[in-house]
Amino acid sequence: MRRFAAETARDLVRSRSLQRQNRRRCLLSPLWPLLSSGSQSRFSSSASSPDSPPAMGSSPPVTLDTINPKVLKCEYAVRGEIVSIAQRLQQELKENPGSHPFDEILYCNIGNPQSLGQQPITFFREVLALCDYPSILDKSETQGLFSADAIERAWQILDQIPGRATGAYSHSQGIKGLRDTIAAGIEARDGFPADPNDIFLTDGASPAVHMMMQLLTRSESDGILCPIPQYPLYSASIALHGGTLVPYYLDEEAGWGLEISELQKQLDSAKSKGITVRALVVINPGNPTGQVLAEENQRQIVEFCKKEGLVLLADEVYQENIYVPDKQFHSFKKIARSMGYGDNDISLVSFQSVSKGYHGECGKRGGYMEVTGFSADVREQIYKVASVNLCSNITGQILASLVMNPPKVGDESYESYCEERDGILSSLARRAKTLENAFNSLEGITCNRAEGAMYLFPRVYLPQKAIKAAEAAKMAPDAFYCRRLLNATGIVVVAGSGFGQVPGTWHFRCTILPQEDKIPAVVSRLTEFHKGFMDEFRD
Amino acid sequence: MRRFAAETARDLVRSRSLQRQNRRRCLLSPLWPLLSSGSQSRFSSSASSPDSPPAMGSSPPVTLDTINPKVLKCEYAVRGEIVSIAQRLQQELKENPGSHPFDEILYCNIGNPQSLGQQPITFFREVLALCDYPSILDKSETQGLFSADAIERAWQILDQIPGRATGAYSHSQGIKGLRDTIAAGIEARDGFPADPNDIFLTDGASPAVHMMMQLLTRSESDGILCPIPQYPLYSASIALHGGTLVPYYLDEEAGWGLEISELQKQLDSAKSKGITVRALVVINPGNPTGQVLAEENQRQIVEFCKKEGLVLLADEVYQENIYVPDKQFHSFKKIARSMGYGDNDISLVSFQSVSKGYHGECGKRGGYMEVTGFSADVREQIYKVASVNLCSNITGQILASLVMNPPKVGDESYESYCEERDGILSSLARRAKTLENAFNSLEGITCNRAEGAMYLFPRVYLPQKAIKAAEAAKMAPDAFYCRRLLNATGIVVVAGSGFGQVPGTWHFRCTILPQEDKIPAVVSRLTEFHKGFMDEFRD
Repeated sequence: MRRFAAETARDLVRSRSLQRQNRRRCLLSPLWPLLSSGSQSRFSSSASSPDSPPAMGSSPPVTLDTINPKVLKCEYAVRGEIVSIAQRLQQELKENPGSHPFDEILYCNIGNPQSLGQQPITFFREVLALCDYPSILDKSETQGLFSADAIERAWQILDQIPGRATGAYSHSQGIKGLRDTIAAGIEARDGFPADPNDIFLTDGASPAVHMMMQLLTRSESDGILCPIPQYPLYSASIALHGGTLVPYYLDEEAGWGLEISELQKQLDSAKSKGITVRALVVINPGNPTGQVLAEENQRQIVEFCKKEGLVLLADEVYQENIYVPDKQFHSFKKIARSMGYGDNDISLVSFQSVSKGYHGECGKRGGYMEVTGFSADVREQIYKVASVNLCSNITGQILASLVMNPPKVGDESYESYCEERDGILSSLARRAKTLENAFNSLEGITCNRAEGAMYLFPRVYLPQKAIKAAEAAKMAPDAFYCRRLLNATGIVVVAGSGFGQVPGTWHFRCTILPQEDKIPAVVSRLTEFHKGFMDEFRD
Repeated sequence: MRRFAAETARDLVRSRSLQRQNRRRCLLSPLWPLLSSGSQSRFSSSASSPDSPPAMGSSPPVTLDTINPKVLKCEYAVRGEIVSIAQRLQQELKENPGSHPFDEILYCNIGNPQSLGQQPITFFREVLALCDYPSILDKSETQGLFSADAIERAWQILDQIPGRATGAYSHSQGIKGLRDTIAAGIEARDGFPADPNDIFLTDGASPAVHMMMQLLTRSESDGILCPIPQYPLYSASIALHGGTLVPYYLDEEAGWGLEISELQKQLDSAKSKGITVRALVVINPGNPTGQVLAEENQRQIVEFCKKEGLVLLADEVYQENIYVPDKQFHSFKKIARSMGYGDNDISLVSFQSVSKGYHGECGKRGGYMEVTGFSADVREQIYKVASVNLCSNITGQILASLVMNPPKVGDESYESYCEERDGILSSLARRAKTLENAFNSLEGITCNRAEGAMYLFPRVYLPQKAIKAAEAAKMAPDAFYCRRLLNATGIVVVAGSGFGQVPGTWHFRCTILPQEDKIPAVVSRLTEFHKGFMDEFRD
């Protein structure tokens, strides 16, 4: 059912796009054509024109043909059809063990570390528990269960919350004391001042991205420059808010490099089509591509945004996930400030999340955006939109403050905290390297190194025979490959067509998150499957 | 600054409305004219036409004139200008005690119980703390700190979470086991089946409302019937999604009654203006009006929606807040099912939140919507939009399951839980009655009873002289009154013009949430202020 509904929706989107969105389709064509290719349309004859909504008053009042077409247009491959199939397989394995050639589903589709067994950072969870139930803070048993610095930190945080009320709505930007802590953490990271009034705490980074897209998008004539491949939150959010995604291609040959000439070319091309480009999205470290930008490259990007009057939307949620000694994370704010550019020179939004890093607290939905270089009256509008949703969840707010201010030398938890953090990060680095080597050892696969983030994005050179088989199955070739991989191994990865890629190239995104003791099995299952696939479809 | 920016934004909205939205303005005119009245426009001569966006490429790239006009149009009075003033006064009191004729600010502007000292339900917080830090579940000290049924419940919940990973993203509708619990709670409440697959867990009710508005709104020709007075989330969300609010007036003389003839009249009027009305919003118990609908009235509403093919959006977040013995809460789903209407007869969405009720856990941002009577393919679209934001926060999800499945007879916590719950609800009932009586004893004020919810919405018959003074101050008369009240007493209430009201009538919304020992002071301060105000402006 799910699959059928999704395909029906895509058909509707496609027919509407064909009818009336030629300009936009041109810009998007490298990204989407195969997402909607080939399936049969249930609505091809019955769908009414978008300009003449059908009469109301009959049941059911809401059909695919009468909902917001922007919703229809939106796609989010990371939780798309392949996950539905995986969930079905998982159910089948549960009900009928041995019914498939694998005994578990390995979800490598999404950056969700704790779902694959990564343990939370003890200190963070101690503090959260104490803030949830402060009545135990001064009980003697509590000393036996919690570290002294967690108890101390919980008191500090409670003192920052008006009335110590962790169950009250906070200021719509987040609790002021926690924003002070976060701003101090940013200052310590960057060596430049940060203002707590620039911080907007959010339920993860995604709502923050939506807020900025909503603010900047007036119509489909407003464009947002996004990397291709991109994390599909961006395409989804742009579609939902009715703007136009202006793609710029990362250079796979150059380790997913970001070339200013490519930015300029795509910007000029969009302008010539009547698009007003409002902002540039940069994901650093890259998702799905795993590269870490060089400092010099970042300076060029800042200069480009300043010259072209673009808002720089810096997705920096993987700032702690760096796995190679020759690369370091630098925030775009630090780069801009080190170039002498202040609030009056560049509009810059940095997104951070508690879901990534070494902590991986996805379920807590914490995050923030640091909004700099906007006029007071525009900032007021951002605040107003935040206030309509009252505030982000307080647990996530507290966690965001902990992430930006973890235990320090001398704190009781410091050593165990470092051990947990470094254990996770060094293990992730080993897993990234092992998987990268495994991919590169396979016939017809090349894979850039994961310098950071949580993903590899290998390129698969599919044989013509496989491409033809995919066409016959009415699927994108990379989606066909991923489906076969899932059915053969239980490993869930996401096809490159969900992220965008140079037309005619095929990729998939695979997280580096299975626990380390499972990596050898992942490698052998992947290897065996891939060899079989290539043998089956060798031209 | 904030005030100035807000007024500038309103002016921009107003000038644009005048230019091009005559039809829409007509529908909205009872609601908004005074919100934007009188302030001077900084942009009146310089703002470019909305059809010719100014050239980009200069600094700053983003101005009020180049952001999404839907954002400009959106208003949310509950956290608007009056709160900014209150925060300033609070700061002044802190820095300079005695600088005002009161020693604290009393925030009666927002339903935020714990900010005013209401204590959380112990059992709920015990379970949350244990789920945050499960490592202590089997330690001996834990038995001394937590109740046995909280420990048992935490184990149950952890067992429902795949891998016991409370830090992982969940299914985008929420953890299946928690949805099972919630569905069982709905069944127990209504006596009719509920399907866990119909439940979408959300970060409070607000994002759920946004999701439905986003789904149903294609353009400003799509309308949503909303009560006037209304909770301004609805007007804000409709504005943000570019639809049209179609107002229907509650009958103040009949205890804020909801007349079907009024619904029909407004629906017909909207249709005649080319509006396709998609849905009817009903808030029961009422916000800001505090009435509880009679069962027979609810049946009429269901029949109306069925006949007219409208989605019924039932805001039922105050379902536990009932203060009068002659009224009871009935969910619209129960009403529809008891009329024999099933999934094929009516599209119905019920919104619930952990922020209200006796628990008032606003900061946890938990809630759900129960979505029934939509086709599978439309539901799939709702799921897709939910999946773009991955999932709601797990703490809020757990809390929503606790609210729908609190301790039962025989559980260790049952008695203390009942005591806490009933203590809060009976105190709220007493406070509602005391404030209602106080308002009704004042010259020129009438106040319907608060049968439910957390608010009183008294009507103030302002003397002409006060109305003239407000006009001179370029303010809505009720906003003028509320501002004077704040400056004289430190009590923050929200002017009726933020909720909508019959033109020429003036109201304000006052929560019943100050702790009971403060109510006498609230009453005497209100009384003294009001008498002085009437004396000053008596015609």
